[in-house]
Amino acid sequence: MYAVEVRDHVMIAHSFRGEVFGPAQRLHGATFVIDAAFQTGALDANGLVVDIGTASRILREVLAPLDYRNLDELPLFAGCNTTTEFLAAWVHGRVAARCAGGELGRPAGEVVALRVTVSESHVARAWYEAPLG
Amino acid sequence: MYAVEVRDHVMIAHSFRGEVFGPAQRLHGATFVIDAAFQTGALDANGLVVDIGTASRILREVLAPLDYRNLDELPLFAGCNTTTEFLAAWVHGRVAARCAGGELGRPAGEVVALRVTVSESHVARAWYEAPLG
Amino acid sequence: MYAVEVRDHVMIAHSFRGEVFGPAQRLHGATFVIDAAFQTGALDANGLVVDIGTASRILREVLAPLDYRNLDELPLFAGCNTTTEFLAAWVHGRVAARCAGGELGRPAGEVVALRVTVSESHVARAWYEAPLG
Amino acid sequence: MYAVEVRDHVMIAHSFRGEVFGPAQRLHGATFVIDAAFQTGALDANGLVVDIGTASRILREVLAPLDYRNLDELPLFAGCNTTTEFLAAWVHGRVAARCAGGELGRPAGEVVALRVTVSESHVARAWYEAPLG
Amino acid sequence: MYAVEVRDHVMIAHSFRGEVFGPAQRLHGATFVIDAAFQTGALDANGLVVDIGTASRILREVLAPLDYRNLDELPLFAGCNTTTEFLAAWVHGRVAARCAGGELGRPAGEVVALRVTVSESHVARAWYEAPLG
Amino acid sequence: MYAVEVRDHVMIAHSFRGEVFGPAQRLHGATFVIDAAFQTGALDANGLVVDIGTASRILREVLAPLDYRNLDELPLFAGCNTTTEFLAAWVHGRVAARCAGGELGRPAGEVVALRVTVSESHVARAWYEAPLG
Repeated sequence: MYAVEVRDHVMIAHSFRGEVFGPAQRLHGATFVIDAAFQTGALDANGLVVDIGTASRILREVLAPLDYRNLDELPLFAGCNTTTEFLAAWVHGRVAARCAGGELGRPAGEVVALRVTVSESHVARAWYEAPLG
Repeated sequence: MYAVEVRDHVMIAHSFRGEVFGPAQRLHGATFVIDAAFQTGALDANGLVVDIGTASRILREVLAPLDYRNLDELPLFAGCNTTTEFLAAWVHGRVAARCAGGELGRPAGEVVALRVTVSESHVARAWYEAPLG
Repeated sequence: MYAVEVRDHVMIAHSFRGEVFGPAQRLHGATFVIDAAFQTGALDANGLVVDIGTASRILREVLAPLDYRNLDELPLFAGCNTTTEFLAAWVHGRVAARCAGGELGRPAGEVVALRVTVSESHVARAWYEAPLG
Repeated sequence: MYAVEVRDHVMIAHSFRGEVFGPAQRLHGATFVIDAAFQTGALDANGLVVDIGTASRILREVLAPLDYRNLDELPLFAGCNTTTEFLAAWVHGRVAARCAGGELGRPAGEVVALRVTVSESHVARAWYEAPLG
Repeated sequence: MYAVEVRDHVMIAHSFRGEVFGPAQRLHGATFVIDAAFQTGALDANGLVVDIGTASRILREVLAPLDYRNLDELPLFAGCNTTTEFLAAWVHGRVAARCAGGELGRPAGEVVALRVTVSESHVARAWYEAPLG
Repeated sequence: MYAVEVRDHVMIAHSFRGEVFGPAQRLHGATFVIDAAFQTGALDANGLVVDIGTASRILREVLAPLDYRNLDELPLFAGCNTTTEFLAAWVHGRVAARCAGGELGRPAGEVVALRVTVSESHVARAWYEAPLG
């Protein structure tokens, strides 16, 4: 299996509901550094998994609605705890939809899996990985 | 699959038995930076794989008996070469036991796999990954 | 000149006032990874600049009032843009005061300078460095 | 599953053919930082996946023909776009052959899989992972 | 003294003349990760050393003529060995000129020093630091 | 001022004497990642501060007597607490002597300063910097 992974970041505010979160129930924030890893069984005719420039642009477009935002105020996250692992899966869903639409430059089905890793600090991170339909 | 990974470190002395180890047969030491990655098929009601604070605390408790120790003198490692990969598996076993006991805040069986990565320098590391029962 | 540097982090929300900030005028947030570097002309009798454990504890105590907070709501920052460089200087002031009080285990005057570095992402950081009185 | 991973790097020139590459069609270059991760189901009698010294030496020998070279001029890459993912697979093949020959100190079949990761910058990398025969 | 530092990168080909360079006399290449650190004695009215967005844009503009190029073919480097340390100074000169022209948003003289760091791998880097006139 | 910095590492055992060290009074160990930064006012005729290959070789030679050793048993450290900052200065002295002997390829006096940084973990490091005679 081949993979290509690109990196970007967002700076967001949010808060959590639930006693388990302790002080993180207060409004706080995070720099999330996000890596998206596209996986294929074979390289294309150009020798690529996906073009790094294209992958980076699509990751940026997916992240743009979150950047410099208070996630508590975004309707798309209403009722959700926007934990690091939740956001990894959310980014995964959005990037996967772009893959399914062929925007990564590979026919649907050729990018067989995607892993999205979200680092919240130098000591903690989360990821979500799933096959693409 | 979702994952959450937390980081800690220990500073230990040890030596190895076996010609393959060359100069590492002498008493020397290492800073081991340890990452424990907890994996689940679904988030809990709070939107979590496991709580990062809880995971960090349990990793610290598991590592405490090793920290600032000469591993050659610890009865629990008698007769073992405490290589980086051996220690990854040892930490895995201890953290897995804590998971099985429900201490990570998820019922037994919900944390389906665990990977423990041990970095020994900027150019070498090891890991052990296995399903949890 | 000798130095010892320790690392910690906080996760905060804030917003900026001023057109130059563009989208960062909105409420957003950051993970700030903070390094405090203590500088001395000579080691003490133990061979130390400062004890790493003590330095880490004091850095944590200085950062605690910021952690998991919306900085816009803290009276101590009223009227201030809590930029990365502003916060570097603010942390510097608080840690410097602890040094002046002898809490780092060296008599006042022996820790001659302090640099506080605040990393806001994998591509940007700020620092503030000044002599200690 | 156990793994041990070692790191090295090469500095190369190359160019790409194909409009998708945009400015990278021009002769340019890269520092490639390469990690090779050897995976086994069980440790050997010494408590090792593979010896880190041996693994590092073999990775260096595999990389040597690329280091300080213009890959466009190497007959072994004639007609190929030497993309980051292509090179990950090429290194994988060469290291795998050394494993198959028993040079890693484990009988053929005991190193069951190999992953080669090639980082091209602080924001992009690729890898190739496959079982060993 | 305050500082703000931003990061970008370029991927270039080049070769060196001189026996000291050994195999690096051959055409090869590098990924150079470049950090530019702007230093001031006081923050501006917004609480800034310089705006990170502006600083990043200017660094990108300065680096653009190098990116995806064979430096051996650029007239501006004719007769020069484009070593890591040489390029740090070259970038310094170009960014300094932009500072002098007020493009960083501070009047000439307020950005008192600039350091440009160029990392060529995970084990080597160079920098050039000088006051700004 | 120009600088070139190279990196290497050692894995050592040691213990400390003094109550301030708490559990680190026990025999333990560390991976020390060491950076040596050579500083000059001007590049040489080749466009170099110092040759990276030469600098790396000399750093390795200086570190070799420490690697895979129990520092408590080395006569050269008798009576010393081999703290991170102490070792930074010790390495500085040895590398400086090699510079003074012209082994870095620059006449004595042209390498005007040297900084040696020793990282002991992902959260703590020390350095020693001084002019060269």
